[in-house]
Amino acid sequence: METSLPAISVATRAGASGTLKPESADGPNMTGRPLDVLEETLDTPVTVHLKDGTAHFGVLAGYDQHMNVVLDPTELEGSTDDEVEDTTIIRGDNVVSINV
Amino acid sequence: METSLPAISVATRAGASGTLKPESADGPNMTGRPLDVLEETLDTPVTVHLKDGTAHFGVLAGYDQHMNVVLDPTELEGSTDDEVEDTTIIRGDNVVSINV
Amino acid sequence: METSLPAISVATRAGASGTLKPESADGPNMTGRPLDVLEETLDTPVTVHLKDGTAHFGVLAGYDQHMNVVLDPTELEGSTDDEVEDTTIIRGDNVVSINV
Amino acid sequence: METSLPAISVATRAGASGTLKPESADGPNMTGRPLDVLEETLDTPVTVHLKDGTAHFGVLAGYDQHMNVVLDPTELEGSTDDEVEDTTIIRGDNVVSINV
Amino acid sequence: METSLPAISVATRAGASGTLKPESADGPNMTGRPLDVLEETLDTPVTVHLKDGTAHFGVLAGYDQHMNVVLDPTELEGSTDDEVEDTTIIRGDNVVSINV
Amino acid sequence: METSLPAISVATRAGASGTLKPESADGPNMTGRPLDVLEETLDTPVTVHLKDGTAHFGVLAGYDQHMNVVLDPTELEGSTDDEVEDTTIIRGDNVVSINV
Amino acid sequence: METSLPAISVATRAGASGTLKPESADGPNMTGRPLDVLEETLDTPVTVHLKDGTAHFGVLAGYDQHMNVVLDPTELEGSTDDEVEDTTIIRGDNVVSINV
Repeated sequence: METSLPAISVATRAGASGTLKPESADGPNMTGRPLDVLEETLDTPVTVHLKDGTAHFGVLAGYDQHMNVVLDPTELEGSTDDEVEDTTIIRGDNVVSINV
Repeated sequence: METSLPAISVATRAGASGTLKPESADGPNMTGRPLDVLEETLDTPVTVHLKDGTAHFGVLAGYDQHMNVVLDPTELEGSTDDEVEDTTIIRGDNVVSINV
Repeated sequence: METSLPAISVATRAGASGTLKPESADGPNMTGRPLDVLEETLDTPVTVHLKDGTAHFGVLAGYDQHMNVVLDPTELEGSTDDEVEDTTIIRGDNVVSINV
Repeated sequence: METSLPAISVATRAGASGTLKPESADGPNMTGRPLDVLEETLDTPVTVHLKDGTAHFGVLAGYDQHMNVVLDPTELEGSTDDEVEDTTIIRGDNVVSINV
Repeated sequence: METSLPAISVATRAGASGTLKPESADGPNMTGRPLDVLEETLDTPVTVHLKDGTAHFGVLAGYDQHMNVVLDPTELEGSTDDEVEDTTIIRGDNVVSINV
Repeated sequence: METSLPAISVATRAGASGTLKPESADGPNMTGRPLDVLEETLDTPVTVHLKDGTAHFGVLAGYDQHMNVVLDPTELEGSTDDEVEDTTIIRGDNVVSINV
Repeated sequence: METSLPAISVATRAGASGTLKPESADGPNMTGRPLDVLEETLDTPVTVHLKDGTAHFGVLAGYDQHMNVVLDPTELEGSTDDEVEDTTIIRGDNVVSINV
């Protein structure tokens, strides 16, 4: 006999972050969901636009379900005005959009 | 003997995103709920209006329950001022409205 | 033997959206709760007033527990300045009031 | 054998809305809690003051745990400047105070 | 055999409002926590300062875990400019501070 | 047979407030976490800086997981401009920083 | 017979803070997540940029899942304009970015 509770686990994680595909075949699809796109974008350069009007350019080194992000300086020669100089953690509630 | 917990799973997911139809026949209907409309709109062009007064036009490539959205450039010839140039993730809390 | 958990389900859904009547006879009444009124208003014209001072007139095609709403153009001849031209999803956190 | 979970239900509902009296005799009292006062005020006239500086006068027809409220026009002869003309749903996050 | 779940109840309530003392002897103390102070202040006069710069003076008739408060007029002769004229519910997210 | 659920309790409390050390040896450390520092600061003078630009000086009499704080007047001779005159509850969402 | 619930615990903690690696091999990666970077940065100097335009320089003495942080003065000779003078708790919702 087994009393397993996989449904709770999946539901809670899906509810919190939207990053796990629903198991049920007839649930919403949400193709290319925002956090899935961030996952695919790891280790590539992005521009993050903030509510204060500034933009930050760097390699996406990490993120979480709140859209908090970590940007690393690129190793490209020369840098743009927007490029981060050091590893920078940006709190998600400041983010307007991310160009990938 | 079975100890199944479907009610918890459904309730939690409905509570978090409102995208799953309630099982009970006499629950609220909510016809054409916002996230259902987004689901039906996947892969078609939309205009997203933000709180900063800007508008962003593109193909809806994805979304999640926070109304975070992913827009892709359209493949139409010529582009409007509002059209996104690259794949763009918009954080949901900036969204005022989405025209589908 | 049965291990049913209806109480969790009801409590969670009530906690999240307030749209289900409490089972207990002596719980709060909340007559004509906001989401119940929206439910009754489906398929009829409403005006949604937003925090940016704009108003949007259309047929209420859907809503969810965050007060995200979907408006469709009316099929009335002539249209007012406020009438939506296309199906429009409005994110609930922009809403000040809804006239039904 | 019975595996009942009343404690979860009560705790969750109390945590979400504060409208149910705690069962334990030595818990907080919170006499005349805000939502209890709204419950007692149903079907009587109230003035709702919003963050945008406006005030709305009407009969309290409903409310929920977010302090979303529904106001109906009064049937009094003559109406004040503040009186609602139609049934009006006000989203709770706009509310500053309610005079009962 | 007993399947009791007291820990969930306590943890959830503590997490939501911070008003119940943790059971564990080595948990945080939080002496004189904000909601405990409100509880002790019931039925005495307080001044509530709001984010819009206004102040409201009255007898604390109730409160909840969101710091929503209910103020009643005092029965003192004469009234100050700040004193509430009727029973007033103030939504907690407008509150800056409460002088007790 | 025992059906204990200690893991839920711990996880929920840690998730809500971050004040309990994770049990697992390889979980995050978070040395000197903000609420732990507040706990250690109880009964000593602090300055609380608010978003409206004001500062409030007093003895930290209590706090909770939302960073709601209770300040008491100090018993020092003379008082600074910033010192609270009465016991003051400050709602956490107004707090920018606390100097301990 | 054993009724263990490890999945709930893990899911809840991951949902709340994003700091624990998902167990499932095909879950999201989120390499170098924001809170992981803060964990690695403990005891080293950081600059915290706030929404009010100020910056605060100090040794990261602690943090939690809301990005509340604790800064200690550095022991470097001389101090910059931005350096904190005392142990300072910064509430996370004020944070724009953290340079590590």
